Order: sequence, then C-alpha cells, then structure tokens
Amino acid sequence: MNADRVADLPTPALVVDRAALDHNIEVMAAALPGDRLRPHVKAHKCTGLARRQAAAGHRGFTCATIRECEGMAAAGLGADLLLANEVLDAGRIGALVRAGARVTLAVDSAETIEAAVRGGVREVVVDVNVGLPRCGCRPADAGSLAELARARGLSVRGVMGYEGHVMALGDAAERARRCRLSMELLLAAAADVGGELISAGGTGTHDCNTWATEIQAGSYALMDAQYNRQGLPFRQAAHVLATVVSSAARWSVADAGLKAFGMDHGDPELPGARVRLCSDEHTTFAPPRRVGERVRLVPAHIDPTVAYHERIYLCDGDKVVDCWPVDLRGW
Amino acid sequence: MNADRVADLPTPALVVDRAALDHNIEVMAAALPGDRLRPHVKAHKCTGLARRQAAAGHRGFTCATIRECEGMAAAGLGADLLLANEVLDAGRIGALVRAGARVTLAVDSAETIEAAVRGGVREVVVDVNVGLPRCGCRPADAGSLAELARARGLSVRGVMGYEGHVMALGDAAERARRCRLSMELLLAAAADVGGELISAGGTGTHDCNTWATEIQAGSYALMDAQYNRQGLPFRQAAHVLATVVSSAARWSVADAGLKAFGMDHGDPELPGARVRLCSDEHTTFAPPRRVGERVRLVPAHIDPTVAYHERIYLCDGDKVVDCWPVDLRGW
Repeated sequence: MNADRVADLPTPALVVDRAALDHNIEVMAAALPGDRLRPHVKAHKCTGLARRQAAAGHRGFTCATIRECEGMAAAGLGADLLLANEVLDAGRIGALVRAGARVTLAVDSAETIEAAVRGGVREVVVDVNVGLPRCGCRPADAGSLAELARARGLSVRGVMGYEGHVMALGDAAERARRCRLSMELLLAAAADVGGELISAGGTGTHDCNTWATEIQAGSYALMDAQYNRQGLPFRQAAHVLATVVSSAARWSVADAGLKAFGMDHGDPELPGARVRLCSDEHTTFAPPRRVGERVRLVPAHIDPTVAYHERIYLCDGDKVVDCWPVDLRGW
Repeated sequence: MNADRVADLPTPALVVDRAALDHNIEVMAAALPGDRLRPHVKAHKCTGLARRQAAAGHRGFTCATIRECEGMAAAGLGADLLLANEVLDAGRIGALVRAGARVTLAVDSAETIEAAVRGGVREVVVDVNVGLPRCGCRPADAGSLAELARARGLSVRGVMGYEGHVMALGDAAERARRCRLSMELLLAAAADVGGELISAGGTGTHDCNTWATEIQAGSYALMDAQYNRQGLPFRQAAHVLATVVSSAARWSVADAGLKAFGMDHGDPELPGARVRLCSDEHTTFAPPRRVGERVRLVPAHIDPTVAYHERIYLCDGDKVVDCWPVDLRGW
C-alpha cells in the first residue's frame, strides 16, 4: 500500500468507500440471495472485490473476457464461472476446465459451438438476442443450436440473453415493461433449449427481471453517475480522487482525465461543480478551488473507468484500509 | 511474444504497422529535426516507440505524468524530459533528478513553485495559458512567477503554452491563424520570463506553429481518426485488431469495445462499415461479416486508447516483428 491515509495517496486514485460497498453488497444479497445473483466481474475487474461478493453468498460469477475467467480461477473463485461472451480461441477456457475450474461458455452460432468443442470446453449456454443489437442468436434458432451443441458432445446448461438496451431507461415502469418483452423472447428460447439456467439482467433490471433464474449484475457494487439517476437502492462507492493542480479566475484543473475515466457516457461529475472539459490527464471544472485541494469525481460509467486503474484503494473515512490490485484487466 | 503472425494474435490487440510508423517518424523528423521536436510520450506510453523517435534525432521528450518521466529515465531516455504538467508531489521528480535524469517541470502558481522546491526539482518552465481552459498562468503573470521561481533557487528554462483548443480545427488556415494568436500571447510571456525554451504545439499545429522553439507533438507517430480528417502528412499506423465473434442478418460484433478504445472523441471507425454501438467488450457494425474474420478498427483518439493496452504489436504485413510493453501507463 502506498499510504495509510487517503490524503497521502498519489492521484489520480480509484478510491472505494467501504461502508457504501458493504451496503451495496448487502442490499443486493438481500434482494437476490445466493445463486439468484451471478455477479458480473467486468464492472470491477478485481478478485479482492469478488471475494466480498462470494462472502455474501454468491457462488457463481459472470465474466466478459477469458482473462477474467483465468484470474477468477487463479484466485480460487472458479466454482461456477459463466463467460457471457462468444469466443473463437476457446483453448484457454478448455485449459481452465481441465485444471478444475467450472467455466460455462456462451455460444450463438455453429462457429462458436465448433470453437468450444475444439477448445475443450464442456458446458455452454445458448446466447439469445433479446433486443440489443449485439451478440445472441435469433430466439427461433436457439433450440436447433442447442441440439447441435449436444450432438457435438457439449452439455447445454440453458440460455442467456442480455436486455442491455433496457438497462439505462430512466423510467422504472418502462424499464420493467421492456424487460418483460425481452424476457418473453428468452423464455420461449429456454423452452426450446432446456437446461436449468436462464441467465440475464443487470443492475438496472435486478429488481424487475423476475423471469431469469439468475441476474448478471455488476455495476451495483461500485455504481456510477448513469445508474445514480435511476433511483436504485445502491450508493456511489467508487470515486476517482484527484488533486487540484492549477486554478484560474474562473476554473480549476484536477489531475484526472481521459485516462482515468471511461468517457462513453460523458464527462465525470463533481458534486457542487460543473465539469467543463476533460483532456488526457486533466478535468477542468468551475467554480475554482484552491490549488492542492482534493476532489472526488464520480465516473459516468464504472466499467471502462476501472479498466484504466491498477488498484482500488478501499477507504474508511480518511483511512486506507486495503489496496486491491485490479487484477482482471487486459485480455 | 504471443504469436509470430498477426492472424494468431489474441484479440483485441493493438497492432502498429511498421512501415506507417517509420514513415510518420521520418516525415516529422524532416519537418522538425532534432530539438525542434520534443515528442510527447503520452500519445504512445511506450519506451520501445520512444527509442525509435530518439534514433530519429530527438533527444528531449515531453511527458504528462510522473510515471512517464520515471519510465523514460529508467529506459535511458532521460537526457532532457519536460513534464508539461503541474504537480504537487514533486518529490518523485526530485529523486529522478538526483539519480541523474534531467527533468524540467511546468509551474503556473506560487503553490507549484513551492512544490518544485520542496521536491528537489531544479529546473522549471512557466506554463502560460494561451486560450485552452486548462492549466497555465495568465500571460501577464508569467514574468513575476519566473522571478519568484528564480528567487526560490530554481532555474527557469523558459515558457510553455499548449494551444490545445486549436488542435482539432478542421480548416488548416483557421488553425494557423488561431495558433498565431495563441503564440503571440506565449511570445509576450517569453519576453518577460527569459530562458531558451518556448515549448508548445502538437500534431495539429506542427507545421504552422513557427513561433515555438520546440513542438510537443505525440499523436503523429500512431495517428487516429480525429487527426486523419485534417489532411496531415501522417499515416494511420495503429489499429485495434478484433475478431468477429457473432453475426446476425444485419450486423456483426467484433471483440473490442469500450475497454479497448478511448471514447471521448466518439466511436472507433471501421473502413467500409458503419459502427453502430460500442459496449464493454464489443463493437457492433454493419454490414455483417463472417464469424472468425479479423477486422482492424481505427481509434477515434489514440492517447486514451493506448492507455488501455498492455502491449503494442509491431507488424510488417502479416508478420509480428516486435512486441513492446506499453510501459508508461498508470501514474
């Protein structure tokens, strides 16, 4: 650890408030206990944090990359990993399976089924497109893909389908309505596919998606500005701590910029201030503060923010109580 | 190295075309030979690449972070580093100076001058605001800050001022006109400050900024979609190589997304296709291609793109000829 006090941390630093993190993990574990939640590690990329989620009773995890699966298995958290993504180089997953991890892979085409077989993967789910223009087969094709997978010797555990196009809708009732439409597609596919898993959902639909057998939420643990606007029962746990390095008459500049924040959802927020500009290592905001002051910026989107940081500092007030490597980065 | 052939690289992968890189470095070294260019390492964060720039005759480098200075010094490239940024924890810079590197620090306030003194820094430039709402003192204050710095025992090598608000203007004549306005401010400050350095500029103004004694360009080496629109004499050298992992009737999905691209300048581009959506590990584009095909995406903004990648694969056609760690990431 570089410092015992938050005030001494070199900036920019990704700091996580322990009380808020504990709150978020507890609230989610109460809403979706045990295997009802399959926490998505892509939102924090950190086995230290995943361990807390496991301690809250969640045995299975969702991953987005092979590297995430490898890191989770190496950390002893590989009891039931779902790689919720198509891959063609499945040999690294096969190696994990042979080494004793349980990894289930998403498939949505004959090509990805063949890749799974070739790579030594044993278990798959059929990924079904439920409305987001991304991966997943047409719902009507799910049954025949499951048949093909079984014919090729794979065990088909069920289906998954991510209603990502619904996740950011501001109105909760509209989110629930469109979630139901997506899940009707997934349930029809599940009936054709068989198996025990109907894996779907995310932080934005964790409370309204009552059709999936398990929810793949990740952002709830750290949260971000986008999800904060949705009235969810989770607190902002992650901030990027920055130092004011320059002040002019009408603005100040903090030392955290485009390389400290995922920018696809826009600029980070600074409560009580207006962010004017982000550049590589700077965020300009108004009104100005004193040079040397520390500020805590709220990331607009947590997942690509975490991926820029080497470590998470777990903090309790002004004390740094732990330092976790963000050990699941890269591919 | 993970693979000898580009076709075997795990994806996403940051690949750099050797011929295009060599072309860019040569063209820039011809336009701004030797110390007329102080290449900015923030655009590639890679000592392997910096070494090529040094071989082209550039002895001094520009850095944006303390870590970049430390990495450059450790790589033996610390003959004349300019940290073109304000810092308050200057002790790490002082340590580099004591160990034999030459590092000049930007200051723009009494606080940053005191931090430099306290940290054991010996040489500074006065950072002057020339129009971008970011760091830098008012031009009229530059002289008195230089006086203060000298009174505190620092050697003042001159001024710097970044005309970043001009850099992305599409029209070359307008870019040149507004660059001149900024440099008039900087030259006035330089007259008050004294010293030999007038450091400014970037890839977008490398050809029209004839007032600075040295240009801090960085993006020219790898290039990006933003700069490609400006008619500069540099070629797109860096691409993110991705694999098509899923295809539907109207789109395909490649396995590189928000964690493989800086997104502040918008979505990456795929020549011949239309990018529809980027999510954490995916880019959806149309029209669709075959599952398993490889695509090369052009980053919208190179600097925050490179910062996501662990390594740069230097490629010659389908051959991987070198693999450079992106060793200047983090802070």
